[in-house]
Order: sequence, then C-alpha cells, then structure tokens
Amino acid sequence: MAEIGIGILGGGYMGKAHAVAMSSVGAIFGTALRPRLEMVCASSAQSAERYREAYGFARATADWRTLVAAPEVEAIVIATPQETHREIAEAAFSLGKPVFCEKPLGASLDDSAAMVAAAEAAGVVNMVGFNYIRTPASQFARKLISDGEIGDITWFRGEHTEDFLADPDAPATWRTSGMANGTMGDLAPHMINGALALMGPIARTMGLYETVHKTRPGGDVSNDDHAQMMCRFANGAMGQMYFSRVATGRKMGYAYEISGTKGAIRFDQEDQNALWLYRMDGPEATRGFTKILTGPAHPDYEPFCQGPGHGTGYQDQIIIEAKDFLNAIATGTAIWPTFRDGHEVNRVIAATLASADSGTWQDINDF
Amino acid sequence: MAEIGIGILGGGYMGKAHAVAMSSVGAIFGTALRPRLEMVCASSAQSAERYREAYGFARATADWRTLVAAPEVEAIVIATPQETHREIAEAAFSLGKPVFCEKPLGASLDDSAAMVAAAEAAGVVNMVGFNYIRTPASQFARKLISDGEIGDITWFRGEHTEDFLADPDAPATWRTSGMANGTMGDLAPHMINGALALMGPIARTMGLYETVHKTRPGGDVSNDDHAQMMCRFANGAMGQMYFSRVATGRKMGYAYEISGTKGAIRFDQEDQNALWLYRMDGPEATRGFTKILTGPAHPDYEPFCQGPGHGTGYQDQIIIEAKDFLNAIATGTAIWPTFRDGHEVNRVIAATLASADSGTWQDINDF
Amino acid sequence: MAEIGIGILGGGYMGKAHAVAMSSVGAIFGTALRPRLEMVCASSAQSAERYREAYGFARATADWRTLVAAPEVEAIVIATPQETHREIAEAAFSLGKPVFCEKPLGASLDDSAAMVAAAEAAGVVNMVGFNYIRTPASQFARKLISDGEIGDITWFRGEHTEDFLADPDAPATWRTSGMANGTMGDLAPHMINGALALMGPIARTMGLYETVHKTRPGGDVSNDDHAQMMCRFANGAMGQMYFSRVATGRKMGYAYEISGTKGAIRFDQEDQNALWLYRMDGPEATRGFTKILTGPAHPDYEPFCQGPGHGTGYQDQIIIEAKDFLNAIATGTAIWPTFRDGHEVNRVIAATLASADSGTWQDINDF
Amino acid sequence: MAEIGIGILGGGYMGKAHAVAMSSVGAIFGTALRPRLEMVCASSAQSAERYREAYGFARATADWRTLVAAPEVEAIVIATPQETHREIAEAAFSLGKPVFCEKPLGASLDDSAAMVAAAEAAGVVNMVGFNYIRTPASQFARKLISDGEIGDITWFRGEHTEDFLADPDAPATWRTSGMANGTMGDLAPHMINGALALMGPIARTMGLYETVHKTRPGGDVSNDDHAQMMCRFANGAMGQMYFSRVATGRKMGYAYEISGTKGAIRFDQEDQNALWLYRMDGPEATRGFTKILTGPAHPDYEPFCQGPGHGTGYQDQIIIEAKDFLNAIATGTAIWPTFRDGHEVNRVIAATLASADSGTWQDINDF
Ligand SMILES: NC(=O)C1=CN([C@@H]2O[C@H](COP(=O)(O)OP(=O)(O)OC[C@H]3O[C@@H](n4cnc5c(N)ncnc54)[C@H](O)[C@@H]3O)[C@@H](O)[C@H]2O)C=CC1
Ligand SMILES: NC(=O)C1=CN([C@@H]2O[C@H](COP(=O)(O)OP(=O)(O)OC[C@H]3O[C@@H](n4cnc5c(N)ncnc54)[C@H](O)[C@@H]3O)[C@@H](O)[C@H]2O)C=CC1
Ligand SMILES: NC(=O)C1=CN([C@@H]2O[C@H](COP(=O)(O)OP(=O)(O)OC[C@H]3O[C@@H](n4cnc5c(N)ncnc54)[C@H](O)[C@@H]3O)[C@@H](O)[C@H]2O)C=CC1
Ligand SMILES: NC(=O)C1=CN([C@@H]2O[C@H](COP(=O)(O)OP(=O)(O)OC[C@H]3O[C@@H](n4cnc5c(N)ncnc54)[C@H](O)[C@@H]3O)[C@@H](O)[C@H]2O)C=CC1
Repeated sequence: MAEIGIGILGGGYMGKAHAVAMSSVGAIFGTALRPRLEMVCASSAQSAERYREAYGFARATADWRTLVAAPEVEAIVIATPQETHREIAEAAFSLGKPVFCEKPLGASLDDSAAMVAAAEAAGVVNMVGFNYIRTPASQFARKLISDGEIGDITWFRGEHTEDFLADPDAPATWRTSGMANGTMGDLAPHMINGALALMGPIARTMGLYETVHKTRPGGDVSNDDHAQMMCRFANGAMGQMYFSRVATGRKMGYAYEISGTKGAIRFDQEDQNALWLYRMDGPEATRGFTKILTGPAHPDYEPFCQGPGHGTGYQDQIIIEAKDFLNAIATGTAIWPTFRDGHEVNRVIAATLASADSGTWQDINDF
Repeated sequence: MAEIGIGILGGGYMGKAHAVAMSSVGAIFGTALRPRLEMVCASSAQSAERYREAYGFARATADWRTLVAAPEVEAIVIATPQETHREIAEAAFSLGKPVFCEKPLGASLDDSAAMVAAAEAAGVVNMVGFNYIRTPASQFARKLISDGEIGDITWFRGEHTEDFLADPDAPATWRTSGMANGTMGDLAPHMINGALALMGPIARTMGLYETVHKTRPGGDVSNDDHAQMMCRFANGAMGQMYFSRVATGRKMGYAYEISGTKGAIRFDQEDQNALWLYRMDGPEATRGFTKILTGPAHPDYEPFCQGPGHGTGYQDQIIIEAKDFLNAIATGTAIWPTFRDGHEVNRVIAATLASADSGTWQDINDF
Repeated sequence: MAEIGIGILGGGYMGKAHAVAMSSVGAIFGTALRPRLEMVCASSAQSAERYREAYGFARATADWRTLVAAPEVEAIVIATPQETHREIAEAAFSLGKPVFCEKPLGASLDDSAAMVAAAEAAGVVNMVGFNYIRTPASQFARKLISDGEIGDITWFRGEHTEDFLADPDAPATWRTSGMANGTMGDLAPHMINGALALMGPIARTMGLYETVHKTRPGGDVSNDDHAQMMCRFANGAMGQMYFSRVATGRKMGYAYEISGTKGAIRFDQEDQNALWLYRMDGPEATRGFTKILTGPAHPDYEPFCQGPGHGTGYQDQIIIEAKDFLNAIATGTAIWPTFRDGHEVNRVIAATLASADSGTWQDINDF
Repeated sequence: MAEIGIGILGGGYMGKAHAVAMSSVGAIFGTALRPRLEMVCASSAQSAERYREAYGFARATADWRTLVAAPEVEAIVIATPQETHREIAEAAFSLGKPVFCEKPLGASLDDSAAMVAAAEAAGVVNMVGFNYIRTPASQFARKLISDGEIGDITWFRGEHTEDFLADPDAPATWRTSGMANGTMGDLAPHMINGALALMGPIARTMGLYETVHKTRPGGDVSNDDHAQMMCRFANGAMGQMYFSRVATGRKMGYAYEISGTKGAIRFDQEDQNALWLYRMDGPEATRGFTKILTGPAHPDYEPFCQGPGHGTGYQDQIIIEAKDFLNAIATGTAIWPTFRDGHEVNRVIAATLASADSGTWQDINDF
C-alpha cells in the first residue's frame, strides 16, 4: 500500500470536510493509495496553523504557492472560494499534480474554460466536487435510468433549495455580492450537474432570476437570491429547475423527479437514504412509489455499513469523492466529473443567465 | 326551508358527482335551500334514463334545451364536455337561471368571454367548478396567506400531474384531440385557478408544451401531453408550474409549494387531509414543517365530521361546491369563483400557449 | 327499484353520519333498495325535531319505541350511546326488523350476548358499525392477506389512538365515566375488530390499562384513558395493541403493521388513502415499502370517483356501510360484521380487562 | 495535543466502524486526545493482519491478551462477540486501562455484573456502545423531554426491528443459537437502553418471545426471532416495546413514540435526520407534528457539517461515541452510558425473559 501526500487549500466548511475524508477514506474503502495530510493553506498564517493542528496536517502555510510547490504535496484539493480556483489549479497542473477542485469550477465561464485547457494539457487527474450526486441513492438513480428501468425519459424537475438567506434581516456578506456567489453561481451547479448526470446534455434553456432582498443590514445585494429555468434535454425530454437560498423551510432541498415511459423516480436530499421508484408493471392495484432505503445493494454503501437502512450522511459523500479521486490517481484514469464536466455545468449557467437577460431561449451550443 | 329544483347536464364522471352532492348537501350543511333532483340530461335518451334511475332524478331528457327550459328546473349544473358549456350557459342565463359550470369555462377564450358577458348581463349566480381549491386544507392555506402568516410571498411552485395517458399504448380518444382537451385545456385550469386564489393575479408568463406520444393506437394525438410555465405574479413573486397527463406514478398531483418571508406552505392533493406549514419563529432547533391534519378548526370540515384527522375525500369537495352554489342562490350573492374568475384562468392559459408558440414572454393584459 | 323506510336513533355525531349516508348511498352505489328517511329519534322532542329538519326526515320522536314500532320504518340504525343499544335492538328484532348498530355492540359482554341471541332468533339482517375497516385501503389489506400475498403472518401491531382527552384540563363528561365509555370500551373495539378481520381469531391476551388523569375539572374519572395488550392469534402470530384517548398529537391513529414471511403491510388512518406494501421479491436493490394510493382498482372506491388517488374520506366509510346493510336486506344475506362479530370483539375486551386485573394471561375461550 | 494508543479487538462489522471512527474523530471534533491505531486483534493471525493493513494499525495479533497487555495500547475497544466481552474487559481493567465495550455488555447478567464490579474497582473510564441514542435527533429528543417540553410523560412505544432473518430460507448461523445472540440478546439492548435514556428506569415488565422459524437450512434455531414487552416506568408511564429480526421490510427500525401531557415525540432511525415534535400550544388550527431536520442547532451535529438538513449517518454515530470516550479519558470523568448502564439494560432483559417464562409480571428490582 502506497502513501500519497495531500495538500488542501482552505480549512473552512469544505477544507475540513476534505481533511476528514482523507483521514478515513483509506480505512473505509481500503484504497490502494493512503493519504498523508501534508499541508494545509488558509488566508492567514494563524488560521492555517489552527487548521493544521485541528485536522492533523504536518505543515501549514498562508501562501497557496508554497503548498502547491511543496514536493511532499503530491495531490491538491482546492477548497477556497471560487475566485481563487483557476490560478491555483493552473499552477498545480503546471507541476503535473492531480487536482480536485470544489464546485463551481472557477468563478466564470472563462475560468472554467482555462482550467479545462490546463488540465487536459497536463494530462493529469482532475475532478470537480459535485458531492450530492455521489450518495448511494443518486448513484443508484443514475443506474436505474441508464439501465432503462423507467423507459424513455419524458420529464425532469430539479431543485436546489436552501433557506440560509430567507430572513430579510440576515446581513450582507461576501455571499451577497458577485454572480459567482449568488444562487446561480453557488447552488445551481450542484443540481445542473445532477441533471446532466441523470439525463445527459441540455440543449436549450430559458431562465429567470432575481434578487428578492435588494438591501440587507450591512449593504446592498448584487447577486441573485433565486432563479429558475425551463429546458429541453438533448434526449428530447422537457425539464424545469429551481434554485434558491431564500426557500423558507428548505435546508438541503436537492431534489428531483424524473418521469419515463415505464416508471418514475423521486429523490429529496433531506431524506438522502431513500429513493422512490415507481414502475408501470404488475397489477394496477399494487402499483405505487416504492421507498427504497439504501443499503449494501446500492453503490458505495457497504464500505460504510453492512446493514441496509443504517444510512450515510453528508460527510460520507466527501469520503466517496476522496476514494474516487485517489483511485483515479492510482490507476491514472480520469474519473467523472472531470473539469470538462464542471465546465459543461458553467456553460448551462451562462446560457441560462443570458436567456434571462434577453428573455429568449438560448442554445447551449452558443456558450 | 325551501326547495330548489336542480337540473344537471351530463351524467358521467362529474354529472354523477354533482347528483350525489345535491343529494346530501342539505343534510351535511343544513343549507337554507334544499335541492330536488328535477331533471338529468345526457347525449342519448337511453343513458339519460339510466342516470335518472341511478341517481334518483324525477325526469330525464336527451335534449339540453328541454332541461334548461323546464320551469321546475330552477338552477343548472353543466357537467358536459367543454365544447357544450357556452351554448347551454347562455340559454340558461337568458332565462335568468343560476348556473354552475364545470371547469374549464368553455372550450376557448372566446367562449369564456361570451359566458361572462351573458352571466353579468343576466345578473344571476354563476360559478365555476374548481373543486380542488375547496378542500379544507387548501382553503386554510389561502387563509394563512391572506392573514400574512407566511409574510410576503416570494415563490410559488404548482403542478397538476396525473398519469392516465402515461402508457404509450393507451389508445387515442376524444381526450387526445382538441386543445381544450389537452393538458393545458383540461388539467392546467385547476392549478392556475389555485395559483390565482392563493397568490393573486399573474402578470407575465412564458410557457412550453408538447405532445410526448404523437401517435397512439387508434389515431394521432393533436393536443399536449404536458406543459410548463414560468411566471411573474402581480405581487412580485416568481412562479413555476407544470401540468401533465403523462406523469408516471402521479395519480392526483395537484400540489403546490409557496415560500414567504416568514414561512412556507406545502400541499399535495394525494394526501389531501394534510397541510404542511413552516414558520420562521421560535428557536431554530424546533423549526420545521408542521404536518397539520385537517379538522373542525379548518374551513368546511366540521359538517363532514366532528373528529379531526378523520378526513374528507374527493366527493366532499363537490358537496362543498354545491353548498356554496346553493347559498349564493339563497342570498343572491355571487360566490367565488364566478365565471369571471374562470375567464381569468383562460386568459392565463391563452397567454401561456402564445408565449410557447412565440418563444417570448407574454403579458396577461394582452389577452 | 324499491324503497325502504329508514329509522335512525340518535341525531348526534353518528346519527348525522348515517342520515347523510342514507341520503346519498343510492346515487353512489346504485343500490337496489333506495332509503327513505322515515323517522329520527333523539332524547328530546326539540332536538329530534331539529334533526328531522336538518337531515330531511319525514318525522321525529323522542321515544325510541315509537320509532321502532312505526310500520313505515322498515330498517333501524342505532346511533345512540352504548347503554341503549341492547333494549332498542331487542325490540326491533322482536318485530323482525333489520338492525344496524353502532359500535360497540352494547355496553357489556352480557349486552352483546343477548343481542346476538335476539338477532339470531329473529333471523334478520344485523350489522355492527365498524367503519374503519371499510376503507378501500383496509379492505384491500384484508384481501392481500387472505390471498397470501405477504405469506404466513408472524406479527401484528395495531393501535387506535386519539388525543381528545390529552389535555389534563379537559373537563369530565359522560365519556369519563363507565367502562363502556373508556378507551377499552369506546376506542379499542374498532382496532380489535380490525385485528380479527385482518388476522382471524385471538386466542390469548394479556392487558394493562389505566386512568392517566384521575380528576378533571368537573369530577373524577372512572374509566381508562389508555390501555395496551399483548396477544397470540389463533393462526400462531404474536400481536401487540395500544388504545388511547390521551395520545397527544394523534387525531385518528387507527394504524396497523403486519409482517409475514413474504411481505408486510402498513397502514395509518390519518392518511387513509394510502396502503404500504412490502414484498420480499425481485432484486434486493429495488425492494421497499410501496405507497399504494387507493383507486378504482381497490374495493368500494370507484363508485365515489373514477380517478385513482382522488381519495375518499370519513363520511364515505359510513356510506359503504349503508350500501352493505341495504344489500344484505335486499338479498336476505347476513353481511360481515354481524352482531356475532361485534360480540367476538367484546369477548376479547372482557378477557383483556380480566387479564389486566389478574396480571395473568387469559384465554378468550373462557369469555 | 496528546496522542493515545488505541487497541481494537475484532475487525469485523464493528471493529471496522471503530477503527474508522478513531481515524477521523480528531479532525472532526478537535479532541484533546488524538488516537493512534496501535493494534488490532482478530481470531486468526491472517485476518488480524488483513485488518491491520486495511485500517492502518501499527500491529496485529490473534491473541487478545497480547493486545490488552501491550504498553502502547492505552485504551481498549472491544468489538468481538458478546461471549468474549467479560474476560477481555476484566483483563484490561486489571491493568487500569479504559475500556469501550460494544453492546450488549457481556453475554449474560452474570457477565455484566462482573464487568461493572471490575470497572468500578479499577476506577477507570468504561463505556458501552449504544450508538443509536447518540444521533443528533435522539440526543435532542432526550433534551426536549428533560427540559419538560412535552410535559409529564404518559406513554412510550419503542421498537428495534430489522428483517435480516425474515426469509425462512436464510441459513442457520451463530446468530441463530444462544440467547445472547437472539433478538432479546442482540437487538433489544439498543432500544431498552434508549427507553431508559429517554424515560428513566423501568419498574416492572411483562414479556413474550418466540422462535418463528424453528429450523433453518443448516440446523435448528435455539434463540428468539422476535419478542415484545409491556412495562411500567418508574416515572409512572406505561410502555410497550417490540424487537424483531424477522420484521419483513424493516431495515433499521429503531423507532419510538412518546406522549406527554404537553406534547409528543416520534422518531424512526430509518430517517435518522428527522425528529417529529408535537406541541399542544398555539391555535388548534396550526397544530401538528413538526418534522425537525437535524442541524447545527442540535447536539453533536455541527462538527460534521455546518449546513442543517445535510445529515449524518451510521458511521457518524460511532465517531460521536469515540469523541465521548476520548473526552472521558482526557478528563477522567465517566461518560454515559457506563458499564453500570449496560448492566441496567441486562437486568431489564433478564426480567423480561423471566416474565415471559413465568407468564407473570416481574419487578426489575428482583434482578
Ligand atoms: N460541495 C459542497 O457541498 C460545498 C462546496 N463549497 C465550495 O467550497 C469552496 C470553499 O467554500 P467554503 O469552504 O464554504 O468557504 P469557507 O469560507 O468556509 O472557507 C474558505 C477557506 O479558504 C481560505 N482562503 C480564502 N482565500 C484564500 C487564499 N487566497 N489563499 C489561501 N486560502 C484562502 C480561507 O482562509 C478559508 O480557510 C467554494 O468554492 C465553495 O463554493 C462550499 C460549501 C459546500
Ligand atoms: N372538476 C373536476 O374534477 C372534473 C371536471 N371535469 C369536467 O366536467 C365536464 C364533464 O366531464 P366528464 O364528466 O369527465 O365527462 P363524461 O364523458 O364522463 O360525461 C359527459 C356527459 O355529458 C353528456 N353529454 C355530452 N354531450 C352532450 C350534449 N351535447 N348534450 C347533453 N349531454 C351531453 C354525456 O352523455 C355524459 O353523460 C367537462 O367539462 C370536464 O372538463 C371532468 C372531470 C373532473
Ligand atoms: N363508528 C364511529 O366512528 C363512531 C361511533 N360512535 C358510536 O355511536 C354511538 C353514538 O355516539 P355519538 O353519535 O358520538 O353520540 P352523540 O352524543 O353525538 O349523539 C347521541 C344521540 O343519541 C340520542 N340519545 C341518547 N339517548 C337516547 C335515548 N335514550 N333515546 C333516544 N335518543 C337518545 C341523543 O339525543 C343524540 O342525538 C355510540 O354507540 C358511539 O360509541 C361514536 C362516534 C364515532
Ligand atoms: N452497536 C452496533 O450497532 C452493533 C454492535 N455489534 C456488537 O459488536 C460486537 C461484534 O459484532 P460484529 O462486529 O458484528 O461481529 P463480526 O463477526 O463482524 O466480527 C467479530 C470480530 O471479532 C473477532 N473475534 C471473535 N472472537 C475473537 C476472539 N476470541 N479473540 C479475538 N478476536 C475475536 C473476529 O475475528 C472478528 O474480527 C458484538 O458484541 C455485537 O453485538 C454488532 C453489530 C452492530
């Protein structure tokens, strides 16, 4: 079993999640590569040192270049704000180091295009942090669809809704300025990636977005509070999505409903261990949505627990990502979603914003 | 207690429902006017006679003019297909008789405009059969919103989804031709009326509709299988709706989710005796959606049962309509929704179809 | 189509429900016998007259003997308190009139034994008002079990829980005195009947009951607030039941869970239009409880509505009872549950109370 | 930050769970003591070595005495079958080493009595592995109750139901012999401990248990497949519990319902991130069970994720245990549940089995 030195940029919400994931992924999945927490980077030396001690890294730095360049750091995890993703990733690729980057891939379409180019030029493993699609339930949903269990897909409804800014009196922060930090920039990528994973490419889109609370204590708000879109998938199905940070009462509303000619699937991340499946077979009298509890029969569940229905949680999604990233490095094979997949998400977002601004349908191919 | 002679046009799905409602509404609600089942009309003398006997009418006819003109028929219920609504209503109004008309109000915007004109010229009671908004739960939802319990509304999502044509092998029937019988014509009116009732007027709309299964055993399909729309309400809120008769697994998916600055409401007709309410008050640790079971504390429940949680069903909605119709006649006061309200629904539908055809947003005022 | 004169004793909660049911059952089910509301009886002439007018009876009386004896009254519905059931039923049977009696069958085991004897001596139709088992969902559950769909039954859990006396400050009333009006007397019969219907006879029982709030504003409480039992069914399965009127938050908690060697069933009356079915077949990965929405494919649903998932309510259960009662009279065939079935329930209750008092298991055969 | 050498006995289901927990607990909770995976023990040298490599221990052994005696092993986790618990724990205590022992505490009442004596004589930290009560939801339920939020408790219903032996054709294994491995021995402890935690001591009990499938492929079955009990708590409340490994369709049915004079709580481990709370306050019309999604406002949630509703899983429960165990060692304070608490559970089980055998109520004080 070989070790691999990990450097993590950022020690906040996601920096911690990835540090924890790297600590336990080996024991859980028995990965060929065993991560060694080499270095953590944060904006100040003080916070970096605090993270180092808390998460058990060998070293800390406030300069991301130091981390990227350190020879003991053999793989990079970017868990800093979107504006920083591009520069860091480009530097890492120029040194031939594999990169896992948190979603969204950069702060703009330009960013992600450049990041894809850098990744593909370097030819090293690159991956984007769309964790929600990695639950056993959503992985199984993908499999059911690709196995044809619900027939030809006719309809997709998705949402990513939370309510952390539902209170009009919640103060302005960095989250309330910059399109990359608004709902389309920050929340939509998860569900759009989910839609692409479950349904395949989106062909056309028509969007609408707005700032509900234009002023908050502490300043004006310059990005969107919620947004919606209608779309047509390349497979011909119609779709509808909604994204919100002001969806009062919704805490982790990553949810989708998919109808096909033979069945249907429903999922809500707030009950992430259940997938609802309807199949148009057997006598009418016993048809209905079946609430399937995830278990060892579903993807990536058993390593966490041998008992069905015992359940996985948020942190486990990040561990599954870490496993996939390490396996990709070990085998040298790219693992979905790559930077290119992250860029595809950004194209849909750009097209949707453009359609909202123009009031006309946009073709994704034009972005 | 006075009696009133009722004539019902149509003895099918809804004709029966109204006949039953007229039989029991007096005992349930203790209405001032007690209905007497005077005459039923159907397309053939044979079927009319069968309905007469089955439902307990005094007389039967295959000629709707006979029914409308009969002096013992003092109030008219139209439960025949949309194409017939206008002519019948106009005839009844010309005789000064109150009319209850099943949804949608006529088969086109022209129809409903004419029907409103006739109703208002006659100055008699006129009402449209939007029954779903009359459950105790949905009536209570309206009250919560108008009382300001969930604050200013920011978002509305609605759907009316069923799956009676989800099977591609289901044969072509009259339902599969004519826009008035498609999803926008037949199912959308319920939810659009619901949206107007809960939210107030819609200002702008942008739609998309399609025929999923263009050919069925027995013929081609000329109307829409499912449709969606984005909209802006006059109160400023954004909205999203979806209508489908191919929503595999959905049986009575009249469902809505409404977010406000102080709370949120969720409802799904498939569990019609529960309303979910979230309120942004009290400590964070005890917040969540409360599943309220309907009971005597909610509108129009107690006459059906003194016990909370005991539940009402589909037929009871029609009984509530009958009560409101009879009370309106007794007091001479118009009762919501009038023909004008039914026409408002048709305007939204016309605008949405136009927006889908043009690919541009449409202002409801232009319809 | 023949008419039948109906006399209803009691015009309160259930008296009204039966009056309403008799008004609409003909139109809904197309029964061969069409009820005519002949006479209603209540404790005072005043209230009887009020009920007469409200529900549309021809005549009213405050003397139950008058009603029972009236020649136009051809069938009797007893919806007065349990203490009155026996005397009325015996009088009706002595005149050879069919009797529908609300649950429980009399106020004691002696009462029900006498009532069975009278019914069987008269040889006329007799039926007990266990309405909850008559929902389409619970009828379908019975069918699934008897068809062997869930294999050999190993476990039954039932409850009938409400919270109308959960508040310690709720005043003492007639409900708070007399064992026939306590939880074992008043609520348990519904679920015990349900258990017998779903599972077959109970062989042995062991109970426990108590008065939680021994004093209430207005007086002492002399009957039980909640009670439980363990039991063994004749088919070998183990069972557990709970009955409560102090089950805070529960409104209509008639609920059961049944496990078998091939599957399982779950039901909760608070969502009466859904039945949950698990079947141990197909691949593990797609197993789970299926939420079946009732529809035309289930017993006694279609007459209420052609659309699945549209739902029936409390009042509809009483209408189904009325249909069965009328059909039994029309055909001269006894219909389940007869008085004998009501008496079986009382035997289980008596045995359970005795076991609680003695602290030892009781054999139902000894009661 | 100090390190502590951990030795884990057993590398199977729970051995792995504890190894993983010890790998990540430091990063998640920032514990003062940081575990070092020192040694793992399994029944064969081969399997021990495999576990060592998979989970990242420094050394492996097939002799538990070697592990217990190793000076680098400063704290012991027992994750071997119940029959082995006592001997190992006694040896560890004799060396003054803290012990975490998986449930149940030993294979018999004698075992657990001896283990308590050894633990208390040694005066070192001792803890039992009842993980389910450690979810944020169940910890919050305990707090709600002890804060009096649902008033005086009147009723408790609990179950621990799974279906891993529901299939009559599942083969006989070690699980199907020996009372310590039956349902009362193996599953009941979790829920009985839960009941004691939520409700306080049980005073009296009356049980019933049985083997449903007496023979299985491979041999006879000598322990119970399911069991139930009625009980009286010391606080006066009545209770009812059920335990099963043949509960078809149930995967992780650790569920409870608790009624009080001011409210009620419901929980089901199959949806472990939701707690349902009913409060008898505010207007009747808005009362109902509130589905609270766990989040940073609830115990032990935030270290896993800053976002509410994002959810924790099975493995996280074991991490919470590890945190509590390490903190107890660091501070020298005993942490609930100690061996004494594990012994209390065994007393209830012994009394319940005795009551089932005798058919009479048993006082826990007699055990
Ligand atoms: N996959 C998921 O579920 C989530 C993903 N994210 C994504 O993760 C990324 C990080 O977000 P959070 O962890 O929420 O942010 P955070 O604010 O909690 O942490 C950001 C960290 O980055 C560090 N940092 C900021 N600028 C830096 C710089 N120039 N050089 C070095 N360190 C710097 C900060 O010191 C801090 O440690 C973002 O791209 C965000 O969109 C965030 C939350 C959830
Ligand atoms: N509110 C609701 O939930 C529902 C409303 N509807 C509406 O109710 C109306 C009737 O629909 P259904 O009852 O489903 O149709 P149906 O096909 O079941 O019954 C139609 C009845 O109208 C009679 N009829 C047709 N043309 C006639 C004519 N020219 N003269 C006299 N009688 C005629 C037929 O003989 C038949 O009795 C429609 O407007 C429909 O949109 C339908 C179903 C549900
Ligand atoms: N199946 C079910 O879901 C329910 C069944 N019940 C049962 O129905 C029966 C009636 O209960 P409720 O309707 O709740 O009672 P209630 O108190 O609402 O009505 C009782 C009626 O009986 C009349 N009455 C009482 N004593 C009389 C006498 N000696 N002679 C003539 N009339 C008399 C009263 O005037 C009143 O009209 C009871 O046996 C009860 O257990 C009650 C509620 C629900
Ligand atoms: N808290 C919970 O959720 C659960 C607790 N448990 C408890 O955990 C304990 C272990 O159960 P599992 O992990 O399911 O068993 P398992 O069969 O998966 O693993 C048992 C381990 O103990 C080792 N072992 C057995 N005898 C040994 C001996 N004499 N010396 C050294 N090693 C020995 C085996 O080699 C194996 O590695 C039991 O007490 C069980 O009741 C089990 C499952 C779930």
